Amino acid sequence: VAGTTVGVVGAGQLARMMYAAATRLDLHLKVLATRADESAAQIFADVALGSPDDRDDLFRLATGCDVVTFDHELVDLEVLRSLEQAGHVLRPSAEALSVATDKAAQRRMLGAAGFPLPEHTAVSNRDEAVRFADRHGWPLILKAVRGGYDGRGVWSVGSAEDAEQVLREATDAGLRLFTEPHLDLDREIAVVVARGADGDACAYPVVETIQVEGICREVLAPARIDPGLADVAGKIALGIAETIGAVGILAIEMFVVDGEVVVNELAARPHNSGHLTIDGAATSQFENHLRAVAGLPLGPTHLTAEDVAMVNVLGTASTGDPRERLSDALSVDGVHVHLYGKQPRPGRKIGHVTATGAGCRDRARQAAEILAGGSMGGPRG
Amino acid sequence: VAGTTVGVVGAGQLARMMYAAATRLDLHLKVLATRADESAAQIFADVALGSPDDRDDLFRLATGCDVVTFDHELVDLEVLRSLEQAGHVLRPSAEALSVATDKAAQRRMLGAAGFPLPEHTAVSNRDEAVRFADRHGWPLILKAVRGGYDGRGVWSVGSAEDAEQVLREATDAGLRLFTEPHLDLDREIAVVVARGADGDACAYPVVETIQVEGICREVLAPARIDPGLADVAGKIALGIAETIGAVGILAIEMFVVDGEVVVNELAARPHNSGHLTIDGAATSQFENHLRAVAGLPLGPTHLTAEDVAMVNVLGTASTGDPRERLSDALSVDGVHVHLYGKQPRPGRKIGHVTATGAGCRDRARQAAEILAGGSMGGPRG
Repeated sequence: VAGTTVGVVGAGQLARMMYAAATRLDLHLKVLATRADESAAQIFADVALGSPDDRDDLFRLATGCDVVTFDHELVDLEVLRSLEQAGHVLRPSAEALSVATDKAAQRRMLGAAGFPLPEHTAVSNRDEAVRFADRHGWPLILKAVRGGYDGRGVWSVGSAEDAEQVLREATDAGLRLFTEPHLDLDREIAVVVARGADGDACAYPVVETIQVEGICREVLAPARIDPGLADVAGKIALGIAETIGAVGILAIEMFVVDGEVVVNELAARPHNSGHLTIDGAATSQFENHLRAVAGLPLGPTHLTAEDVAMVNVLGTASTGDPRERLSDALSVDGVHVHLYGKQPRPGRKIGHVTATGAGCRDRARQAAEILAGGSMGGPRG
Repeated sequence: VAGTTVGVVGAGQLARMMYAAATRLDLHLKVLATRADESAAQIFADVALGSPDDRDDLFRLATGCDVVTFDHELVDLEVLRSLEQAGHVLRPSAEALSVATDKAAQRRMLGAAGFPLPEHTAVSNRDEAVRFADRHGWPLILKAVRGGYDGRGVWSVGSAEDAEQVLREATDAGLRLFTEPHLDLDREIAVVVARGADGDACAYPVVETIQVEGICREVLAPARIDPGLADVAGKIALGIAETIGAVGILAIEMFVVDGEVVVNELAARPHNSGHLTIDGAATSQFENHLRAVAGLPLGPTHLTAEDVAMVNVLGTASTGDPRERLSDALSVDGVHVHLYGKQPRPGRKIGHVTATGAGCRDRARQAAEILAGGSMGGPRG
């Protein structure tokens, strides 16, 4: 472990937030960034410019590092497999990433292992969609097998005509889709699991995620669900981490429908639903990710406050430079502000605010809205 | 405030620990380092190599920054004054630093303002020492007016002969000394105060410092003293911050003698007695230092756990690379490990461990001893 150098593919806010954890533990982090002004590239001492799609760039990064991990999943799995064949250590592995990034393979594997899933089936044409709707009713949810996140790659279609159009455009764009029923959700929840290379794993307390148009807007910990259900969700999450052989952080998004948990999707990296662990848990997800990746023991995952709330700062048409309103945001009582150094664009995540204790959700929201500099069109109530 | 660039003079662990706080708030930090392998220089993206004693290097740093702050106080006050005259903003100011770094001026100022101090007087020869000892008894404590820290620049002398020798050597080395009685201490305590440029200030809870041979070894929060006394100490600390016009963190070390508080000395920067605020307080001293320096509102200072303990990791003859024992150290339940990336030398502070809750002091000690790789000759009991 001494002097471990960890290569990070991708220089977004997740890599950026790994840096503080790495610095404490004196792990050396090197980031592969597409541009020098990306979120993490701005603050890392060791930046390699290159593309996460480029075989040579990835091999160069891996050669200078003891282990490679990921800020995002938009990587070529074939290249990752050839890195492993060449003896480089990827955490998570190419195999775990292939399950996390292919929602069809994911559902097959999780279904076969007995984890609860929504009804779903692959669809490629109108007839298949109609057959599924005959059983489950309209609207249907259509999802891209690969590449969707933050509301991208997800469509709600109310008729055979709508379904046909989405399917035609998707097929033309080379996307495979699957469908699931429109579910009446009691809640959306997520469990962040840290799992070491030795198989040791621990789950963070179940959080509730508040989504608007498929984009996570707020996260509350603990989730406002029955403790028994939270227990079930935690056990499912640990089981999934074991099943796919995750190393590092694995985030499992779930739906609560009619009082039961079903698994929605996975991310094999630190995740938005775990950002509140920086200021609200005994060990941040970023530290536990790096501990796992570097072969170190995991830290405790309990919350350090009774209630923790995180609100994303989304760019709006009038955000401008959020640093101009930092002073106003920090005037809100007891908020932890995180800015990612990203150029604001409408709907883009450019930071988050965490607060703990009484009224934490309102306070975090207030500060986040100040930073956004305009209405984020957030959730109500 | 938008896009504030803060220059940090000195690249030790204090600058290193500022970096995580700066990253969250998207403040740009630039460090003036003597060597590229210094603690902070290893991890900063923006490093200027140069000397904190060199007028040109300091001017160059200040020219590229909106405000300049300090990792250490070993700077030429005349150069700092000329920086201010040239319109550069120093926080703390040259004036505040001059009080913090000149223990004679400090005592004059604090005494004149009515703050409780130990008996003391300037001494330059045997006769003056003997006169002071006639009133207060032997041994006497002799202290260098400037430059002493971590036990350096402090001597306990048991006789006129001893005093004469220390005074002669000190005078030959160009040092001015003062003397105070050997005090029977109930406790040593410290108060870390954050003060903004607007005069707004807040004190962290009073901590207890456990010193061995003048080197801080452990810090406990809250201090095991009467709450009334803690109140007095907090008020004194805030008063001193106001009196010297500190901006940023000011740490005030105090003695408790016969149930009363007397002020020992000041540091106008983040301080070892405040390291436990990273993992044990609502806002770390490093974040509050930067908030103050950048003209942002201060964050709350309360502890986030009932008990917090910090133990320094001191190099020993057998430390080697502490990262080789990181795994063992992190196996201790619920410890927060901070390594500074410094070459271990016997007695050198190379990291610290913080723990919270029941048994925190024992757990932090255990992990720190593992990292030190040998006996640090720590405090007993």
